[in-house]
This record gives sequence, C-alpha cells and structure tokens, in this order.
Amino acid sequence: MTPFTALRAHSVAARGEQKIIADIRRWLGRASPASPFGIGDDCAVIPPAKHHQLVTTDPVIWSRHFDASVPARAVGAKLLKRNLSDIAAMGGRPVAAVVSLALAPQTSVRWLEQFYRGLAACADKHKVKIVGGDITQGPAGFLGAFLTLHGESTGRRVVTRSGTRAGDAIYVTGALGGSLLRHHHAFAPRLAEGVWLAGRSEVRAMMDVSDGLAKDLRALTPPGLVPALDATAIPVSAAARRQALRSGKTPLAHALGDGEDYELLIVVRAGADRFEQAWRRRFRNLPLSRLGRFVRKNHLPPGALRLADYHGYEHLR
Amino acid sequence: MTPFTALRAHSVAARGEQKIIADIRRWLGRASPASPFGIGDDCAVIPPAKHHQLVTTDPVIWSRHFDASVPARAVGAKLLKRNLSDIAAMGGRPVAAVVSLALAPQTSVRWLEQFYRGLAACADKHKVKIVGGDITQGPAGFLGAFLTLHGESTGRRVVTRSGTRAGDAIYVTGALGGSLLRHHHAFAPRLAEGVWLAGRSEVRAMMDVSDGLAKDLRALTPPGLVPALDATAIPVSAAARRQALRSGKTPLAHALGDGEDYELLIVVRAGADRFEQAWRRRFRNLPLSRLGRFVRKNHLPPGALRLADYHGYEHLR
Repeated sequence: MTPFTALRAHSVAARGEQKIIADIRRWLGRASPASPFGIGDDCAVIPPAKHHQLVTTDPVIWSRHFDASVPARAVGAKLLKRNLSDIAAMGGRPVAAVVSLALAPQTSVRWLEQFYRGLAACADKHKVKIVGGDITQGPAGFLGAFLTLHGESTGRRVVTRSGTRAGDAIYVTGALGGSLLRHHHAFAPRLAEGVWLAGRSEVRAMMDVSDGLAKDLRALTPPGLVPALDATAIPVSAAARRQALRSGKTPLAHALGDGEDYELLIVVRAGADRFEQAWRRRFRNLPLSRLGRFVRKNHLPPGALRLADYHGYEHLR
Repeated sequence: MTPFTALRAHSVAARGEQKIIADIRRWLGRASPASPFGIGDDCAVIPPAKHHQLVTTDPVIWSRHFDASVPARAVGAKLLKRNLSDIAAMGGRPVAAVVSLALAPQTSVRWLEQFYRGLAACADKHKVKIVGGDITQGPAGFLGAFLTLHGESTGRRVVTRSGTRAGDAIYVTGALGGSLLRHHHAFAPRLAEGVWLAGRSEVRAMMDVSDGLAKDLRALTPPGLVPALDATAIPVSAAARRQALRSGKTPLAHALGDGEDYELLIVVRAGADRFEQAWRRRFRNLPLSRLGRFVRKNHLPPGALRLADYHGYEHLR
C-alpha cells in the first residue's frame, strides 16, 4: 500500500490540518495523554526525572526505510522500535515521544490512520506516551516521520559505547543479516535484555547493531585495539542465507554488512565465567553468541576474520 | 544561496556520512558536549531534571520555511528559535536539543556548514546544548531539519493555553504581520519575557503566535466565550503595511493572518491594574498591547473585530 492517493477527497490536504490533528489524537487513543502532558499546547510536559534522561531520534522516510510492501501499521511501529532499540542499547526505559511529520498533500488519510494505529499499539505495548509533535507539508512524493524518544536510565547506570579494554569478549544477541526480507520492520527491540545487561557489572560497553556488525563494531573499538572475530561464531540468520541465494554474496557478507539488525552488541570483561550461564537462565529463547575478543593491534591471531573486507550500511552516497 | 550543488565534489554524498558527522561536531563547537552527554552514542544523556520537563518539535524545510534568499546561518538559527519560542510560551528555560536531518545527496557541504554554524551561535547565545541527532538521505531537492528541544519549567509553574475566564484581558508582545519580508528568520524568541510572565500570578494562559493571531487566538478561547478585540489596538507592524502595498490586502489582514510572528499572546485576569506598569518597568523596549478581552458568546460588544473574516496560516492544503 503506497502512502499517497490520486483522489484528492482521500488526501490529508482535503481533510485539513485541524481535522487531521484531531484524527491523530483519536487514532493514538490512550497512547496520547491529555494536554499539557500531551498534544495540544506549545510544549508537551513530562514530569521531573529521578535518573539520567536518555534522548534519541530516528526517522522513517518513504522509499528509504519502507516501501509499498510494508503495511502502514508496521511502518508506525518501526518508527518507534528503531528508537526503542537505542534506548535498549543504553540499558534504559522508554518514557515519551514526539513525532514531527513532513508529508505530501497527496498523503492518504487512510494510510496515515493505519500508521498511527500501528504506532499507538507499539507505544501501548512498551508503555510509551506520544506527547506531542508537528505536521508540515512536504513536497509531492515525500513522506517522513521524525520521532524523538525520551527515556531514563533504570537507576543503576547508563551503558555507553566506551569502556572496552584489551581481552574483553564480544557478544551479540539473536542472528544477523537479511533484514530487508522482513526483520527490518518485524523486529523486537531488546529492551528487557538491555535493562538486564546494564545491571551486570561484567558489561563494559554496549550498542545496537543498526548499520551492520562490520561497521558498528568500530564504535566499540578504542584506539590501539582491534576486534578478533571467529567467522564460525557469527550467528548468520536464515534470512541472510536466503538473501545470499539472490545476491551472489556470501551469507557471512550479509550477516556482517546488512543494516537494521537491531540486535545488541555487548562488550564483556575477560573471565566473566558466569555471564553466559546467567543470560541463558534469564533469556532462554534469545541466543547469545560470543564472537571473539578485543586484542592489541598487531596481535591479531591467525585466522581471525578480516573485517576490513566487509562494509556496513552507508547513509549518504 | 540554495542548499544544493551541481558539483558532486562539493556535496555531502561525496564527503560521506562519517566525515560529515565529524564536521558537524566541529561546526557546532562548544554547543556540542562530549559523549555520552552529546553526539556519539546510541542516546544522548541529559542530567536529571528537578522541575517539569518541556518538549517541543518544529522543523525547517526547504521551500516551506526558507528559500535561497535566507542565509544558511539564519536558517540554522531559525530552526532553533522556532522551538525556543514554544519554550518561551510555557515560561520555560531551554536545555538541550537533538536534530534529525533528511537531505538530498546534492546538499552542499558549504551550505550545511553555515547552517550548523548559525545553529551553534544561536545555541550558545541561549545556553542550549546540541546533544544528538541523525542524518538520513532524502530525495533529490529535499532538505529538512527536524529539531526537538528540551527545556524545563523555571520552578514556579508551567503556563498552558488553558485557564481563560470571562472578562480576562488579551495582550500581545511586539508587532504583528509581514513576517515574510524578514522577521520570519530575524526574530528574537521571547524567552526572558516568558519566564517573567510565568512568574506573574495575573497571567492565566499563554501561547506564541505562529500561525497568525486570528487562528491562534482560538486555542486560548474556551467553549462559551469569544474574544472581543478592538481593531485599533492591534499592533500592526511596518512590514505588514509594506506587504499590504504589494498584496492589495489591508495591513490589518496581514497583522491578523500572516504566520511566523513568534510573539507572545497572553491572557491576564480582569482588573490586574499593575500588570502593564510592571511590564513597562521590566521590558521598556518591547511594546505590550492590550487587544481586548474575552466575553460570553452573544455578548460581543458592537464594533468588536469580526475575527471570522480573517484566516491564519493553514499547514496542509
């Protein structure tokens, strides 16, 4: 279903700004609290926060992050889940979001309704309130939704991307690659896992994998170190194998290079023997793979994966 | 100066995502704190807030909010000032912002630099930190910057749009109309004024005028009441008079209908005799005009302005 309509009567332009804003509040339902805590004033109001606040922003844009094959409800959910994944990666808890829309006058009201209902269902599931936003007309053929998500740390600490030391082990949740086939909108953000990991003192650093492991791992690698990965330990997804049949690339290339995995990439201090067992007790349905460890430059063991041969997702090209 | 370049070597696509992100941190300078409090992790971190938090989001989009006649630095400043005006309208203090960019591959690096330098200078001036963001490729000819601003109330209270009662007086700061000639990017957000007004117990409700007085005043009008305005009290700007010479409309129509005034519209309880005098002592260079008052429906005095004859800015059409 494309977000645009050729029939003016079905378009947001025909419905008009005031009615669309009223529609949105209705579509959001209980995910939209009353003003001033929600839509309808100059600013949304969020109660004081006890812990550190977390803020992240990610959009979904027509023909970049979704196409006509993705149901509008799934697009709305994806918009929130992309941002939830960032909160998960810091070990936080999501609280409230604002959404800024830029849309062509030809945008279909029916598409927009399904988009907001999908966003609302996802917000309810994760106890997030949609507290404000903005609607601006964009050029013909453009539809972008820009969400900013606010969360807070869960009390213990905020897990950042810094903290890796030589010898630390590298773990990843789930399986990697082939997201384009379905996972890019059907994934589950690893929120409970992120909170649990932030509570484990063995965890030194963490991020979510959104641009492919080969590219994202660089952000966890301090100067002087390199990741030494075992190719056979990479959890290659079934979708990556299916993609490889079409693309002619290897399944491993898809697992390392495809974007939008939304899994957690975790750095754990060396010798944390109980970590894997504790994970399995707590999350028996989500695999955790130990990919290798960080070593000093020039100490790369023979046979380690040559990451430079693989590329992640490039946002501007 | 248009934001796009025909020379690929001068484009953001040629420079690439990683370098552009490094550029942006450099261009922002001291407005960009180090990670995790700024750019470079999954989320930005903001320290705990003592008071209620305020959140608002407004974009600037090429050919909607600016054109080639507006300097790139002024576009960057305008992006922040639009949002500062919303914080001002709640009587708050701004704290931190995130910026989500969607831009055509042909976007000029030089334009983007000036845009960020203008944003940074404005952020420094208002003690706002730019703590995070996102860059996504948009279609050819598109450039949109979506900013979400976080603030907090200044301790006393949050002034909302609700609270108007029959008999309350209506005030506006500055002068109205003709913003398109220059004011739409050269305005000063009324932050100090908003904080002062939030501290005055006579002030019942407040908002900023962004879509024209005729439209925005509706948001302050509770069911059963109507605003009774004196046409001669409307502070018509010199720019509205110049616009009227070109458009054939009246200067009053521009003052009531043009968008982007970014002045404060204030509801004050009846009989607050010292309010005007106190304002003049505190803000001697910014005029405050008493436009009229709220009356019960069917009690509109003869000669009151017929607001229904005027229209504000419509965002979708």
